[in-house]
Amino acid sequence: MGTLSVFLDVPLVKKADIPLDYYGEDPHPQKVLLGHAGCQTDAGEAWIPPVVQRILLQISQDPTLNHEYLPELGIYEYTRAATELAIGKESRALLENRAGGVHTIGGTGALWIGAEFLCRWYKPRFSTPTALYIAKPQLDSLGCIFQVAGFTDIRPYHYWKPVSLTLKTLWGHHKLANAPTGSIVFLHAPEEIGLKPKEWEAVAATMEKKQLFPFFNIESQGLASGNLDRDAWALQHFVGQGFELLCAQSFSRTFGLYDELAGNLIVVTKNNETLIRIQSQLGRQICTTWWCPSSLGARVIGTVLNSPALLYEWKLSLRMVVERIMLIREKLKEKLRILGTPGSWEHLTAQSGMCSFIGLQSSQVEFLAKHKHIYLFENQQINICSINSKNLDYVAQSIHEAVLATSLGDYNLDLEGVDRS
Amino acid sequence: MGTLSVFLDVPLVKKADIPLDYYGEDPHPQKVLLGHAGCQTDAGEAWIPPVVQRILLQISQDPTLNHEYLPELGIYEYTRAATELAIGKESRALLENRAGGVHTIGGTGALWIGAEFLCRWYKPRFSTPTALYIAKPQLDSLGCIFQVAGFTDIRPYHYWKPVSLTLKTLWGHHKLANAPTGSIVFLHAPEEIGLKPKEWEAVAATMEKKQLFPFFNIESQGLASGNLDRDAWALQHFVGQGFELLCAQSFSRTFGLYDELAGNLIVVTKNNETLIRIQSQLGRQICTTWWCPSSLGARVIGTVLNSPALLYEWKLSLRMVVERIMLIREKLKEKLRILGTPGSWEHLTAQSGMCSFIGLQSSQVEFLAKHKHIYLFENQQINICSINSKNLDYVAQSIHEAVLATSLGDYNLDLEGVDRS
Repeated sequence: MGTLSVFLDVPLVKKADIPLDYYGEDPHPQKVLLGHAGCQTDAGEAWIPPVVQRILLQISQDPTLNHEYLPELGIYEYTRAATELAIGKESRALLENRAGGVHTIGGTGALWIGAEFLCRWYKPRFSTPTALYIAKPQLDSLGCIFQVAGFTDIRPYHYWKPVSLTLKTLWGHHKLANAPTGSIVFLHAPEEIGLKPKEWEAVAATMEKKQLFPFFNIESQGLASGNLDRDAWALQHFVGQGFELLCAQSFSRTFGLYDELAGNLIVVTKNNETLIRIQSQLGRQICTTWWCPSSLGARVIGTVLNSPALLYEWKLSLRMVVERIMLIREKLKEKLRILGTPGSWEHLTAQSGMCSFIGLQSSQVEFLAKHKHIYLFENQQINICSINSKNLDYVAQSIHEAVLATSLGDYNLDLEGVDRS
Repeated sequence: MGTLSVFLDVPLVKKADIPLDYYGEDPHPQKVLLGHAGCQTDAGEAWIPPVVQRILLQISQDPTLNHEYLPELGIYEYTRAATELAIGKESRALLENRAGGVHTIGGTGALWIGAEFLCRWYKPRFSTPTALYIAKPQLDSLGCIFQVAGFTDIRPYHYWKPVSLTLKTLWGHHKLANAPTGSIVFLHAPEEIGLKPKEWEAVAATMEKKQLFPFFNIESQGLASGNLDRDAWALQHFVGQGFELLCAQSFSRTFGLYDELAGNLIVVTKNNETLIRIQSQLGRQICTTWWCPSSLGARVIGTVLNSPALLYEWKLSLRMVVERIMLIREKLKEKLRILGTPGSWEHLTAQSGMCSFIGLQSSQVEFLAKHKHIYLFENQQINICSINSKNLDYVAQSIHEAVLATSLGDYNLDLEGVDRS
């Protein structure tokens, strides 16, 4: 047997989530990670709605449940209820049997299966290859899914002006208005973007005119405004306008079940016959990728969504989280105002939901990591839930010092290796 | 909004598992499905080891467990124990840190991630494109995974002579001996194929000489002989010989947890540094396909494999299933002997494990479905566990009639649509 590996050329993948590693290795007692993937309680623990824990226990004690393979499209009661939650129970698309869900391995699984499907079957006959528009910073985190699926012409657009952190609908709108006819537009987490219905209407009108195909991503419906329908307004508007679309839906954040990866790929099309053809193709893709979805997460979510009493309880839990998030946003803004930190911090309360663009420069992010043991991701998105009553003062004071140090020029930034593009 | 769908060209995928549908729709009280995916009890219910049900309950009541995302490579305690189970705790490859596992969404997920990895990174520099050998009937069921992953030169080989159902090692061996240097050989379920150690040694020697790359698939380790190490003899021999290899490992059958999809992709390579590079690439693939694996199945399996007492109990359960399977094989053979059914039925007891080539012609399979309400798959593989004390006599009698009817020529076979290739 030869001693040389046939895998000599395989390169090492550098890990992207370096702040997480730095945070893990930092022994400082006051260290803070502002980039948790999910909801945290004020005690700094992973949040899970009480109803979810109860149903988990109930399912484990159910003697009628078996553990046989699910159908490749998953649990129908779950995908049906999930689809209704997103596009509205009374949606004409549902009543006309031309909207349906496909149970996937989490939101990423829905994105992957959807991206692969579009790459293979979306043929608008206008542009070859099809251009795909994806917002920054989702381009960094999710762009690779579309790239691996086979998209070669991936273009960024912006919801937010990088400096003032105000909405730049008009700019993004302009970009879409000039997109090649038939391009695909990936619309991320509409519930958190902060566009108003009027602005979404304008975006939809442009997209209709240019025959652009919408691929929505709904990661935390209910965690922006606390109202499930309000958070899905944009998606429901597009469906109401008669668009064909895909929507990757994830429940990890709203149910606190990150490790069970319950996702749903919603398909809305022109008629029932097309829906069936599309679902059959998605089923085939699933068979070759993971055979069928895993069940526990979908069983819990399906149970909650299909019971009016449990649904009510879950909605209450969501509302409490949203109130906590708004309170933290207000408190942080107020602390920075009292400290007299230079700059406007209005965006903290103008945005809503768990994730937020904090609005610091790269040098300030680096200052926080190096001098204050506070870690956030390069893309400037922080998880508001990572801030709690124990670390709020420290975080505000540290941001204040970071802004002062860098704006006064007494912080000698080591630019080596810092990407300024 | 136009009324024409952009998905007009998407074809409907015809479902492959038609016997399952026919069985489901058949109202006949004596109907039998000989193609269950998993282990069945004698009462015709899905089998699950008692220890698994206990641990499921225990996990649901554990207050220290959280539901945060797992790392992309999954639960280390699970992949480590699973890898040890397959290649042996004392394997030099493990002691030298050049063998490791990657937690996947079931066995199919392991196959998919492995196939995609090989397609991208396996460059033996001998043959372009790399030929992939895959045994019939796995070609029908799993070939599409490799095809979608990008393999274009997929070739079949046979373990069994189609007519006599005796092992045809020499023939398969001859085929491999003539394979292009550097080809990949997919070795399915070595525990069920029935090759003897001497025959595996010869296959390994040929593969070493031709520098063929082995990709093992272990679906039911322990369910062939009842002895875990004996069932993995071939894999352990290849590892011991210094081969670099991949192995997709699945626990659905042996733990009865089909709906939780716990898989493991075992990588054995030349040194630790190569293993780390390969695992980093597999991690990247996982991030774009399902983000991270789901946890419940792996938590249960990891708990059992890492506890000597629970492991002992699980092994006992496996042994009981194997004894039941051997008993059914013997009883069925004996019934056919007493009935005087033409042909040799020795292969029923010469093979071992849950799956078996039954050795009927297509016309006989069709007779069983049409006249006896007994359904099996086109590929002639039946699940021995689908036979129980209630249906054994009926199945034997029906097989007898099917063989007689077709060999006497009084069964007028409708050949239309039947694939005779």
